This record gives sequence, structure tokens and C-alpha cells, in this order.
Amino acid sequence: MTAADFSGAKVLVTGGLGFIGSNLAHRLVDFGAEVTLMDSLIPEYGGLQYNVHDIRTRVTVTIADVRDPEAVARLVKGQNYLFNLAGQTSHVDSMLDPKTDLEINAAAQLSILEACRKHNPGVKLVFASTRQLYGRPQYLPVDEKHPIRPVDVNGINKLAGEWYHLLYNNVYGIRACALRLTNTYGPRMRVRDARQTFLGIWIRNVIQGAPVLVFGDGTQLRDFNYVDDAVEALLLAAADPRSEGQVFNLGSAEVISLKALAEKLIALHGTGRHRIVPFPPERKAIDIGDYYSDFAKIRSELGWTPKVMLDEGLKRTLAYFSEHGRHYWSNP
Amino acid sequence: MTAADFSGAKVLVTGGLGFIGSNLAHRLVDFGAEVTLMDSLIPEYGGLQYNVHDIRTRVTVTIADVRDPEAVARLVKGQNYLFNLAGQTSHVDSMLDPKTDLEINAAAQLSILEACRKHNPGVKLVFASTRQLYGRPQYLPVDEKHPIRPVDVNGINKLAGEWYHLLYNNVYGIRACALRLTNTYGPRMRVRDARQTFLGIWIRNVIQGAPVLVFGDGTQLRDFNYVDDAVEALLLAAADPRSEGQVFNLGSAEVISLKALAEKLIALHGTGRHRIVPFPPERKAIDIGDYYSDFAKIRSELGWTPKVMLDEGLKRTLAYFSEHGRHYWSNP
Repeated sequence: MTAADFSGAKVLVTGGLGFIGSNLAHRLVDFGAEVTLMDSLIPEYGGLQYNVHDIRTRVTVTIADVRDPEAVARLVKGQNYLFNLAGQTSHVDSMLDPKTDLEINAAAQLSILEACRKHNPGVKLVFASTRQLYGRPQYLPVDEKHPIRPVDVNGINKLAGEWYHLLYNNVYGIRACALRLTNTYGPRMRVRDARQTFLGIWIRNVIQGAPVLVFGDGTQLRDFNYVDDAVEALLLAAADPRSEGQVFNLGSAEVISLKALAEKLIALHGTGRHRIVPFPPERKAIDIGDYYSDFAKIRSELGWTPKVMLDEGLKRTLAYFSEHGRHYWSNP
Repeated sequence: MTAADFSGAKVLVTGGLGFIGSNLAHRLVDFGAEVTLMDSLIPEYGGLQYNVHDIRTRVTVTIADVRDPEAVARLVKGQNYLFNLAGQTSHVDSMLDPKTDLEINAAAQLSILEACRKHNPGVKLVFASTRQLYGRPQYLPVDEKHPIRPVDVNGINKLAGEWYHLLYNNVYGIRACALRLTNTYGPRMRVRDARQTFLGIWIRNVIQGAPVLVFGDGTQLRDFNYVDDAVEALLLAAADPRSEGQVFNLGSAEVISLKALAEKLIALHGTGRHRIVPFPPERKAIDIGDYYSDFAKIRSELGWTPKVMLDEGLKRTLAYFSEHGRHYWSNP
């Protein structure tokens, strides 16, 4: 994958003002792509105008919801690539309001694919899926052959959304693939609360001097990808025809317990404290225990490997939010 | 499972005027249950008032759609059992109108479960799922550990519907289980077209003297359950607490090629003819090849085994439609 794959290409990013979408947009405009960002700016989700303030004149921003079929039909026309990142990401919210989660993560995905089938069957789609659909790991690391057993409504709906993409690839020849992302972090992530990942609010709390709350006993293992690495994987998957009809795990060789992560974050920032607290019951009910990915498939088939180590990625993230945090702490 | 499990019990059957629902209703009223049948009577689906004409005074029939949350909320209250059989069953229709399939097979299931959570968390649910979610078998017979890989929109949405049930069992303690049905046939099945199963239209054609069309080369293997056996499995799953949170395949030890089945049907009827014809393209795209189930799990855990052999079941079915067919050939 090189700049030539995207130079002059027309690219639509759903969820384009969100965390990963806006980081992707920065790479794409540097490559010379013609970028349209579609985002609903729902306050509970990840979209923020500030995420693209520095490239505002180099992208087209459309405030529209993926649940709006007319907007979707209009925007997919003529695109070469569609990075399909819009989603409801909160596991807890998916249990409190399962209908909205279904509408965004399943029904809207189907309508995006129908729009591509009708208006732009030549587009290449990359769908941002999630490790959540594996549920509680039966073995570690979790590869793509691991049984699927989502433990929350979000996992079920994301799975349906993912499979619609593979189905449209297989039945209609609309080229599509899915990346199952693990915890992604970095500049422009949502830090107002834990809706995107708990690490967002940890970073905010460390910077603001509040205690970092670690749920359970802190021994749960996780893997993390710095956002630039996740963006690289999205671009590779878009550019490489070997991705078509495929699902790939992202992941990291650095596996860390939540307690160690909290300590690392505090050490890197130079100050802060953490507290081990019991799981809130609504989180305990859908907790998946230890999780980390086997990402050998994307490494061997698409040549992806994460490059930014956790220390470096956390440093950059802390630096970003130390400088820009006031735009992120609360709703604009 | 005995009559005592259902005698005096309040039972709601969604899709209650359909093929399996109405056969189940006959058993339930014989057991002395207080039965409410909910059905939308959508002409393309399986519901037909005639299916319960002989027990009409012994059941409560409500014409309502599972997509109507108010109707669902009203009807789930006070029930001891909920047999959740309403569904869009046509694979081809699910590709032509994926949104409707999603609304019925996924979204409405979620709203039924939400209604149970809010208004009747003590109910026991049995969900009619399908072998379709396995996709093209990777090995035969297909057991419950077989990877899930639906090949059509219907398979994806039925899977989501099934998993919502397991999720609400696991997270909220609302007792639920799912049976993955294979081809079911018998009296009261839809024979107007192939929307429920191709065998429906075969039976109609044999009785009406039209040729039976066998797609492909006729060597595809399938297993079949006579509807009384499927009903027995539903009742066992409802009555037995060992079913909670579980998924069970139904199936049959009698595996038969489609060509042999056509010949058997014609021989049993005493007259008729079949033609081997190429797959229509819209069916070829979602065909799953050979399929038959391993049903050892439900046999060992719930004691179910199919009792009606194919010859006997087909004879009874032919006899039923020879007598009652005029109520089934076309829309009432």
C-alpha cells in the first residue's frame, strides 16, 4: 500500500469525524485522496468537529446519519473506497438501548450495502468490526477461527453488520472485508467517558489529576493498538485485493494487565494514582475476562504489523490530550 | 415432558397460525393449556386461519405483528411459556427485501425479549432457529459446534435473533433456548410456493398433477423432520430446565437426495413426474450444497428423537393435502 493507491481516489468515511475516522482522514488527505467524511455527531458517540479542524479545508464534511437511507445513497455514489467506521461502540449502552444499537450497527449497515449494490457496486468497502463478537475467549490468543459468542447486544449486532459485508462480497461481488479491532487508542479518541474504551477516561483522569479506576482485581489482560497502526491496517485492507471476503483480527504482541497499564500510564505522565474497585454490576454481566488477539493472518496475508509500541503510543496520546484536551473533556 | 407440564399453563405462540405454530397449538390444547396465538397473517408467510379451524373455540387468536411493540408487550404479560415461531422464512425474499427480514427476524426478536424483561421475566422462551445459519457445511453431519457462516440475509438475521435469546438468558436470567430446525414438513405447511420449503410446492404439484422441479443435479442431500416431531422437540425444550441457554439441532437419521425424495413422493402418491432443471440464479447464489444434522445433543440432553419416518410422514402429508388442499393452494 502506497500513497499511489489513494492519490486522487474518492473516499467516503462513515463515522469520519470520530476517533479512527478522523485519524484515517488525516492520512488520506496526505495521500492526495478526495475525502468525504460522513458523521451524525451524536453527542454520545465519537464524532467531533475539532478532530478535523486542521484539515477542514481539505475534506468534505457531511453531517448525516447512517440510518438515513437517502443520505447514504447520495454519498456512496462515485466513491472508490468506503471505510465504514460509523457505529455505536458502547457495550453498556447497547444493553440499555438495544434498539438503537441494532439500528446503527446492523440495520444501517444493511442499508449502506444495499445502496452500494444499487448505486456503486464497484466500490471497495472496509468495515470496522470488533473483537467483542468472540465473547469470553475459550483460548488465547484469539484467532479468526475462534468460536463466535457475543456476550452483549453490541457484539451480536456488530457481527450481523460484519456478515452483511461478507455476504454482499460473496453473493453480489461487492468487494468488502472486515477488520476485527481490539482496543484502539491515541489522539482524537473519546475521553469524555468510557463509551469508546475505558482507556479514554483513564487518560483524561490522569491528565486532570483524578484517580484511575481499575475494575475487578486488575489482572485482566488486554492488547492495544495505537490508532496509526489501526489506520495502516484499514488502508492495507482497502488497497489489497487479497482482503476481499476476508475477516482479519488486529492485535498487538504487547499484552498487559489493566493494573499494569494504569501504573504505566501514571508513570509516563509522571503523576497520578489508581484505585482497584469492584466491577459495576452492569459491566460485570458482560465482561469477557482476559482477551488478546492472534493477528498472524493479517500479518502474513496483508503484511500488517503494529509499529507503535505501547509506551510510545501512550506518550503521544498523553501529549496530544495535554495540549488539546480542553476540546475533548466535555461536549462542545 | 407430559401433559402435566402444560395443563392449565398460559402459552403464547408467535406465528401461531403458521405451519409449526398451528400444529403446536393442537398439541397444547389437547394438553389443556390456555393458548394464545399471535399472527400477522402476512400473505407471503405461513399463517392461515384455516390451520386452527378445528380448534378455533379452544384458542385465543390475535392478529398482530411481532414488529408492533405495544401488541407484544400486551401479549407477553402473564404467560408461562412463549414459543417464538414468527419469522420471515424465505431465503430468496431475504435477499430481495433484506430490511423486512431484519425487522422481523432480528429487530422484532429483540423487542419481544425486551418486553419479557420488562413485563414478564419469569416466562420460558423457546425460539425456532434454523440450520441456515451454518451456511455451506464444512463437515457432515453438522453438529452445534460447526462454524457459523450464513450465506444469506435470512441466516444472518435469524442468528442475531437466536443470540438475543441466549444473551437475555445469560445476562438477565430470562430462561430461553433455541432449536435449529432443519426442513420440517407435514400437515398445515405452506404449499402455495417455495417460501417455507421447496417440499411444500412439490407436494402441491404432485397432488395437482404438475411436474416436480428438482434444482441442480438432484444429488443434494437433506434431512427432514415431520412436524409432530418438531413440535415434540419444542415442548421438551419448554418443559426441561436443562434447555436453558442452550442451542439444539433437530435432524433426522434418514438422509435423502432431492431426486430420491421426488421419486419417493411420486411413488407414495401413486402418480406424478419430476424434472431435473438448472438452479435459478437467485437460488444458486445462496445454495448450501449437502446438509444434514447431527442431533445427538438434544437426544442425549432432552431425550428427543424423531419418531415419524419419512415414508409415513409423507403419506400423512399427502393425505392431509389431498383432503384439505383447496384451503391451501391459493390465498384465501
